Amino acid sequence: MNFKAIEPVGNKLKILDQRRLPREVRYNEYDDYRDIIESIKTLEVRGAPAIGIAGAFALAIAAQAEVKTDLERLKKILVDIAREIRSARPTAVNLAWAVDRTLDKANHYAGDRIDEYRRILWNEASLILAEDEAMCHAIGAHGQALLKDGDTVLTHCNAGALATGGSGTALAVIYAARDSGKKVKVFADETRPLLQGARLTCWELMQEGIDVTLICDNMAGFLMQQGKIESVILGADRIAANGDFANKIGTYSVAILAKEHGVPFYVAAPTSTFDPGINSGEDIPVEERSPDELTNWGGVPIAPPGVKTYSPAFDITPAELVTAYITDKGITWGKRKGD
Amino acid sequence: MNFKAIEPVGNKLKILDQRRLPREVRYNEYDDYRDIIESIKTLEVRGAPAIGIAGAFALAIAAQAEVKTDLERLKKILVDIAREIRSARPTAVNLAWAVDRTLDKANHYAGDRIDEYRRILWNEASLILAEDEAMCHAIGAHGQALLKDGDTVLTHCNAGALATGGSGTALAVIYAARDSGKKVKVFADETRPLLQGARLTCWELMQEGIDVTLICDNMAGFLMQQGKIESVILGADRIAANGDFANKIGTYSVAILAKEHGVPFYVAAPTSTFDPGINSGEDIPVEERSPDELTNWGGVPIAPPGVKTYSPAFDITPAELVTAYITDKGITWGKRKGD
Repeated sequence: MNFKAIEPVGNKLKILDQRRLPREVRYNEYDDYRDIIESIKTLEVRGAPAIGIAGAFALAIAAQAEVKTDLERLKKILVDIAREIRSARPTAVNLAWAVDRTLDKANHYAGDRIDEYRRILWNEASLILAEDEAMCHAIGAHGQALLKDGDTVLTHCNAGALATGGSGTALAVIYAARDSGKKVKVFADETRPLLQGARLTCWELMQEGIDVTLICDNMAGFLMQQGKIESVILGADRIAANGDFANKIGTYSVAILAKEHGVPFYVAAPTSTFDPGINSGEDIPVEERSPDELTNWGGVPIAPPGVKTYSPAFDITPAELVTAYITDKGITWGKRKGD
Repeated sequence: MNFKAIEPVGNKLKILDQRRLPREVRYNEYDDYRDIIESIKTLEVRGAPAIGIAGAFALAIAAQAEVKTDLERLKKILVDIAREIRSARPTAVNLAWAVDRTLDKANHYAGDRIDEYRRILWNEASLILAEDEAMCHAIGAHGQALLKDGDTVLTHCNAGALATGGSGTALAVIYAARDSGKKVKVFADETRPLLQGARLTCWELMQEGIDVTLICDNMAGFLMQQGKIESVILGADRIAANGDFANKIGTYSVAILAKEHGVPFYVAAPTSTFDPGINSGEDIPVEERSPDELTNWGGVPIAPPGVKTYSPAFDITPAELVTAYITDKGITWGKRKGD
């Protein structure tokens, strides 16, 4: 890839500031876990896999910063910090998963050397990043087999390299198809309210030389009606045991439209996105975001002052609407396979 | 209503500048038909019925401005001007309808008094406006019977008083329900790219004291999934002989979502929107608009420079998805009536 969304540099974490894309390509380096929490909350870094990686490094960085302490006290402090990091965003399972995994790994250390404990945290965060890169690669390799030369794919939000430590989830499939010699075009939903499709997906696909066309979210149905879309590929923030999944608001509408038009609907996600502790979509918490995201753009009001808003960040798509899940372990066919 | 979108004042046409809403409430007065064409093209005045009225007055105003001419020459000049006005926006049938009707009426005048000819044009434009007000009232009166006390209605774009010479089409139903003592809530799709829902529908419903909540277009499906919407009511720009209709881009997606969730889908439009000369939706021309509307907001880029875009202003919804057409002549049940 021609860029990295998230990368450890020395003992800091370097993050591409996605709030500023596409106007400005700026990287920030953090050595305070509270700044990384803020970075996650304000969507400087976003995408379920990427915020998992950021959360794991935030924990490792917090352990480094606590210098005036002994190992037992550090362990106690980190339990609270881990909770704080996990709660930065509630919907994506990867954040909690990565933070817990990193802390568990370190807490299995039976020795008494605090430096070693810190090193284990940092190594585990690095391992999560490396595994994520490998997972992206595997998702791409498995998923590209579903695309034919000349296909046009619709995607929603950004499930790309900007959302992961590697080449992405949904967009990894596009890159892998390209690398295997297939010409694939993409239509990108702009993805209101935060325009991740317009700002991020278009930016990264253009960086990588992929033929991308921007549309408004409400144009997807008309495109499908005209037979211009061969498949939908998008990401997931959390997948329940029954196959229901949470993803960026608007995903459910795209899934209904895809079913109506007989367009295959693929969900690309690493296995860490599957949450066996959640039975169905009804149990996935959906974060509601600030009215400002609907009523203002760049400080300019686009709605009357004081208007009521409803702004769920995610929606829940039932398993019945999924043709297949593209994971790092291979293709898992969904309930719409037979369509 | 607490405002008028379009109103003749003396021998000028007064237009509420909808490009500036909701930030500024500004009226402009025009006595040059070319300014009115520009006003139609730039969406200062918009909505199928309102641009019909504006087109009719543009013709009457053009006739007044041509002072150094005789009647026969004026008639010839007006044929060209009528063509110019009709072509300001291609999709809505009302514009061509209103301009042709005004010109035909005047051309039936058999006398030789140029002032009388000009007066007939002006009177016909005024009559179209008066009839539109009456039509809005009739649409509201018929449509409100479809709503129950406590219903929540989803609407798309702005088919309100701002789009007509009266109380609107889709929103006339809301106002009439309120006036008949029913408490009705509205969810307004923001309606990208030009945000007529956020800027105009929210503004006018708030002016009239209606309980309105703004959402992004891609949130409508999630709302319906949660059972929060009792019916969809929206307008139409052109209705073909078979019942297919053109309306603001995104309408087709809403229609699919409504069918999927068993939510009644109502199209509110005056009879002038029905175009018997068009057999089906396939024959309705769909205007494509500038990429800027997708890539910029208030001069701020929201997508990478040079990104390709696809921006149809309208989409075509097949008759199969319509529960009923609410017109000034009454309710015409559609093919989804039995749902």
